[in-house]
Amino acid sequence: MSAYERCLALVEEALVPQLERLGEIPPGLKESMRYSLEGGGKRIRPVMLLLTAEAMGVPDGEALPYACALEMIHTYSLIHDDLPAMDDDDTRRGKASNHIVFGEGQAVLAGDGLLSAAMELMLLDAQSRPDLRGTRAAYAIARRCGVTGMVAGQSADLSWEGTEVTIEKVRYIHTHKTADLLTAPVEAGLLLAGAEESALALGRTYGLQLGLAFQIVDDILDVTGDPALLGKKTGLDAAAGKQTWVALRGLDGARKDARRCTEEAIEAISQLPGDFSPLAAIARMNAERVR
Amino acid sequence: MSAYERCLALVEEALVPQLERLGEIPPGLKESMRYSLEGGGKRIRPVMLLLTAEAMGVPDGEALPYACALEMIHTYSLIHDDLPAMDDDDTRRGKASNHIVFGEGQAVLAGDGLLSAAMELMLLDAQSRPDLRGTRAAYAIARRCGVTGMVAGQSADLSWEGTEVTIEKVRYIHTHKTADLLTAPVEAGLLLAGAEESALALGRTYGLQLGLAFQIVDDILDVTGDPALLGKKTGLDAAAGKQTWVALRGLDGARKDARRCTEEAIEAISQLPGDFSPLAAIARMNAERVR
Repeated sequence: MSAYERCLALVEEALVPQLERLGEIPPGLKESMRYSLEGGGKRIRPVMLLLTAEAMGVPDGEALPYACALEMIHTYSLIHDDLPAMDDDDTRRGKASNHIVFGEGQAVLAGDGLLSAAMELMLLDAQSRPDLRGTRAAYAIARRCGVTGMVAGQSADLSWEGTEVTIEKVRYIHTHKTADLLTAPVEAGLLLAGAEESALALGRTYGLQLGLAFQIVDDILDVTGDPALLGKKTGLDAAAGKQTWVALRGLDGARKDARRCTEEAIEAISQLPGDFSPLAAIARMNAERVR
Repeated sequence: MSAYERCLALVEEALVPQLERLGEIPPGLKESMRYSLEGGGKRIRPVMLLLTAEAMGVPDGEALPYACALEMIHTYSLIHDDLPAMDDDDTRRGKASNHIVFGEGQAVLAGDGLLSAAMELMLLDAQSRPDLRGTRAAYAIARRCGVTGMVAGQSADLSWEGTEVTIEKVRYIHTHKTADLLTAPVEAGLLLAGAEESALALGRTYGLQLGLAFQIVDDILDVTGDPALLGKKTGLDAAAGKQTWVALRGLDGARKDARRCTEEAIEAISQLPGDFSPLAAIARMNAERVR
């Protein structure tokens, strides 16, 4: 079993119990939150957090609340993103979207609930850590998912739909909508270990470059991918007038950029002390999606 | 100038600067967040937090990030509550609702952004407090606004619309939708001062009873109030088949209960050491709305 698979199993096992730690959630709210939280996916963000923590010698048990919180935040963003007023998607990972099953009102609340639960879970843990490492990890995650992070990216994406595509806009959206939530797990894992600023800087470079590569590959697949293999429709971004890397740089340019970003991500993470080879492998696996 | 008015002025002055501390927010997102945040209102929650902190000897400057965070959370809940899929309100405090001005998608994001900003702001402060008092105050607020707190109340309110009115349901909704966010500022103020469990218990009783009294008075005014004086329509809850105190206990019963809850709130807060008379005055002012 690979390190990724082992961490994935830990996350899958812990997600619902971590939610249960918060107490009695009304049945309707809990059902709608669980519906999306248990919707599968690669769990890349929590796995990255556990892998970073492991490489730095932090026990899995100490990192799990933060890992699960991050997956809850990612899930909330998908629920709100699928709403008719946003991307208007009826399906997600092959299942009906949250608002299709539970209605729009409860879907808004399921998202609000998951974001709140994520914060509560991290703070519940952090308040018993006098070294403030939990508080710092929670802050890093809150910042990356907030109004200068993921929410900023979502808002810009919505505002700029159908406007002229520029490198500044595409980079801003990819950085905040995608890369910030891939940087968060590395930062949080390092902060739980009490890492220094120099290590954090390398982790952030890895997260940013991986995030850009990840989104560039997604943009390429939206043009060249086989819908049957991908399990989702293609050509949607161009049709919606979205700011994409391919729209700006063409397919060849985008492929070149994805390779360069991948190399920079691996270069940065390899300079950290400890075994970060599973994180380098994640960057390589992403690049291979367009081989 | 009363203690309330002095704290209100502090909050009004601090709200936007506290948001600015978080860095560069995209203009569209920031505008929609500020539109609702600067929409006025009594600022009762942040003022209660400052008053509690003052009574316990905590400097205003130390309490302000938490006070402003609480107002951001209250504001996010109003924005999401006004959405067509929720209460479908076109106006709020005499102005057009957020989604009427900015569109539903940006309104969802403005709410997400305010909740995220609140958490980030508290954690930014908490990570520089080795005594963990900031982390504990942030946890109390996150819990009260979360899936066993305010979001639970909102979800139950939505689920139970049009079903049989029972004392259990009405109490659950009032406790979580209203009282939890009035308990949060007292808990947070006490935790910032490092108060003991016995003081917290008194603060929680005050918050719960004030919250119940507050909501009972609102339910009474929805039946007996003058729309011109209140600045909003009346009779809406009955028309929507909402779970209200008046539907359950009748007008006289509701008036009696409001008086009893007010007395219990004042009784609890008066037992705390320090000058909590401004908090007792808030409970009295609320009760006088239906004199």
